[in-house]
Amino acid sequence: MQADEFRAHGHRLIEWIIDYHSRVESLPVESTVAPGEIAALLPEHPGEPDGFEALFADLDRVVVPGLTNWQHPGFFAWFPANTTYPAILAELVSAGLGVQGMSWATSPAVTEVETRMMDWMIDLLGLPDAFRSTSEAGGGVIQGSASEATLTSILAARWRATEGAVNIDSDTTRLVAYATSQAHSSVEKGLRIAGIGTDHLRVVPHDENFAMRPDALADLIAADRAAGLVPFWVCATVGTTNSLAIDPVRAVAEVARAEGVWLHVDAAMAGIATLCPELRWLNEGVELADSYGTNPHKWMGITFDCNLFYTADRISLLGALSILPEYLRTAAAEAGAVIDYRDWQVPLGRRFRALKLWFTLRTDGVAPAQAMIRDHVAWTQQLAEWVADDDRFEVLAPHPLNLLCLALRDGDEATAALISAANATGQVLFTRTVLDGRVVLRFSIGARTTRMADVRDGWALLQRLAS
Amino acid sequence: MQADEFRAHGHRLIEWIIDYHSRVESLPVESTVAPGEIAALLPEHPGEPDGFEALFADLDRVVVPGLTNWQHPGFFAWFPANTTYPAILAELVSAGLGVQGMSWATSPAVTEVETRMMDWMIDLLGLPDAFRSTSEAGGGVIQGSASEATLTSILAARWRATEGAVNIDSDTTRLVAYATSQAHSSVEKGLRIAGIGTDHLRVVPHDENFAMRPDALADLIAADRAAGLVPFWVCATVGTTNSLAIDPVRAVAEVARAEGVWLHVDAAMAGIATLCPELRWLNEGVELADSYGTNPHKWMGITFDCNLFYTADRISLLGALSILPEYLRTAAAEAGAVIDYRDWQVPLGRRFRALKLWFTLRTDGVAPAQAMIRDHVAWTQQLAEWVADDDRFEVLAPHPLNLLCLALRDGDEATAALISAANATGQVLFTRTVLDGRVVLRFSIGARTTRMADVRDGWALLQRLAS
Ligand SMILES: Cc1ncc(COP(=O)(O)O)c(C=O)c1O
Ligand SMILES: Cc1ncc(COP(=O)(O)O)c(C=O)c1O
Repeated sequence: MQADEFRAHGHRLIEWIIDYHSRVESLPVESTVAPGEIAALLPEHPGEPDGFEALFADLDRVVVPGLTNWQHPGFFAWFPANTTYPAILAELVSAGLGVQGMSWATSPAVTEVETRMMDWMIDLLGLPDAFRSTSEAGGGVIQGSASEATLTSILAARWRATEGAVNIDSDTTRLVAYATSQAHSSVEKGLRIAGIGTDHLRVVPHDENFAMRPDALADLIAADRAAGLVPFWVCATVGTTNSLAIDPVRAVAEVARAEGVWLHVDAAMAGIATLCPELRWLNEGVELADSYGTNPHKWMGITFDCNLFYTADRISLLGALSILPEYLRTAAAEAGAVIDYRDWQVPLGRRFRALKLWFTLRTDGVAPAQAMIRDHVAWTQQLAEWVADDDRFEVLAPHPLNLLCLALRDGDEATAALISAANATGQVLFTRTVLDGRVVLRFSIGARTTRMADVRDGWALLQRLAS
Repeated sequence: MQADEFRAHGHRLIEWIIDYHSRVESLPVESTVAPGEIAALLPEHPGEPDGFEALFADLDRVVVPGLTNWQHPGFFAWFPANTTYPAILAELVSAGLGVQGMSWATSPAVTEVETRMMDWMIDLLGLPDAFRSTSEAGGGVIQGSASEATLTSILAARWRATEGAVNIDSDTTRLVAYATSQAHSSVEKGLRIAGIGTDHLRVVPHDENFAMRPDALADLIAADRAAGLVPFWVCATVGTTNSLAIDPVRAVAEVARAEGVWLHVDAAMAGIATLCPELRWLNEGVELADSYGTNPHKWMGITFDCNLFYTADRISLLGALSILPEYLRTAAAEAGAVIDYRDWQVPLGRRFRALKLWFTLRTDGVAPAQAMIRDHVAWTQQLAEWVADDDRFEVLAPHPLNLLCLALRDGDEATAALISAANATGQVLFTRTVLDGRVVLRFSIGARTTRMADVRDGWALLQRLAS
């Protein structure tokens, strides 16, 4: 493809993206295709290239019917994954440049813009100074996902707890980790990947609000110590996936510190809410954490992928992940004057993801995200009042942010049927979970395009279908 | 940012990208900034947004000086990371749609286009049918990097060797892995991450061509078995990072199979060369591997990130990585009719990366990549002849593909000084490595923009600087 074709096609695709966003509301939220239906529209084997026109037509013929539309105003499912124009432009530029950010030397701007953005986000989210790049022992890095951030945290903690021994002496095999049943599945997955294993994850009891009980944590740690095991990592969640429950980070941190256990705070979804100063209470106690992660790719409009991962102990992080083969040695790194972010993450190669933050903060700033978050939180409170007025429904968890967990009093089957019936209309998409054994409809208000009217319509639909 | 601004800015950025590519040749290959210089151009704290014009100006003021230009025709460093127009357009669309591919249900098209592309690439690379999505036990997935592919392979192998036990019984702590000293650092990093540890990585001796000695592998495995250890994973590299050495996959596979050890083939750089049928000998024995990875993001023009990871044993892969919390249950997955790629990788979330392959194969097809690869290989052979004619230089490794490892007979200091001097001209960029204790100048011909004249000029420069 030559430059003039790229120009022409690029312009058409930009129009197509604008058009997609302007008509996304008219599409069903959830794709209605059956398994295999999209694949069947594509040849089984690659043929000769058939050109941009055919490909362009296939965006509408093949791709769009197979999309579940995360940018639809009736998208109340899973969690938000807002994409916004500044971040889309940044991805265009990142791909256009085609530079590598694995080391400082492979393109200094990738590293230095990223470090700056990580520091800017500390200001914007009200996070502790111990995470700054200029702090004595901390720093931050963009990870592809909260799952990778959690894994990275586990690896750093494992390194610290074993002074670098990995799975060789008995210490490593005696490591034990802690989280509630409400922690994200990436906690268990990360522990399995790291060779700690599910059996060495203690499920810390939670209270009636689905938040960790620090006293129970202390008891479990004591029991493990008594059994000769080595408590090494606890994950406190600020905003669980199920219900946005908030573990009491300060109290958990006090237990963790007293026991020398690494505290990771997973604020993947909710942490971004602290862009609004009035929601900074979510950071309570975070200054005592060893690591922290939150996802601009969820609720801030920074197109996936972009997780902010901070640690107050970069020595352990680097201990766990640095490796320096001859072919990656560079003079700048040798001099100790630069950051090589490949040593802060699982993969080697890395894209220029910091552009997404930079483009967004320079053009729109945080005001649109703040306004969106405030609306979503306010509408959730309004929705909760409506639900409280309808005897057929129950609210099953606190809802300080943008997620309401509802169920029908009629029981699990009725709730599950309601979710299916609502989703089948194509106007909304809800996902289910289970809280304390009960099937729950998660009403997550997080799409950037959602208006108050969409929330009202969604609730009216549920009321109608429930009867 | 509104749609009309996105349109206007998008058009300007497309021109800017075209312009960047048209003038990249006039830039120094390696960024000349000192550590901290780029950061110093950005405010320490985020201010109010200052708008697109200011940002746009900063692309040239802040970003470009901080780039090491991987698309420069004089880029002979590390490994190629071609970006091409179709792939850039695909990244634009992927970001524009903002959909999630973690599960089939989160956007069926993301999964089904990806599965098709993985199968198409089997045809195009001449890979074994055991890796097809339609095979009994195999399948493929796009990973972000070869490092993640290697880690995933280790995790699947660990699962198979321990029947799912992780670090709990003594079996896991007795696992042993095998690779040569020439294997990529991601092998050791992956083993550390997985809790196997560096001490349980056996360095298999290599022959004078830097290729694994299967007899030595067999001896090491026998010794470990005799010591009560559990050999579980061997990595054969097709195209090592240092010198593009090629481990004898068939002979290694025969040892591995006889011993029930998982064989991973890391063909990150070289595997893509099999787009050219005359280079299919690189696949010799791959049909005996348990897993295989190669990187379209290196030498095929598929903008980073895009690694093709195949396995012939998806049961072990899924055993190692599947996890199903309530909030991720979907009817389609429950019915067993679909692939949920989140269970094939370390992260949860995933972008619509298959678009990059689809856009490229539908518009340009593979002919441009084939032509480029053929040129690069031919020029490397020509270069080798020139080098052989200059007594001051030595070629230190076989060079069947696009990498020539040279050194000055004068010794390591002279070679290191030559690399520095050449790079300081800004016209070329070479990186160093060490082979058998000797400092090597790696002349890697891989940039899409490189012409024969650039190779000749690069060599002439080295000759001039050497005297
Ligand atoms: C609390 C929490 N942690 C982690 C994750 C995983 O996020 P990612 O897809 O970035 O790995 C989620 C996503 O829902 C989450 O809600
Ligand atoms: C043989 C080999 N394996 C793995 C890698 C790592 O690639 P990635 O950046 O995709 O992890 C490289 C990159 O140089 C390589 O040459």
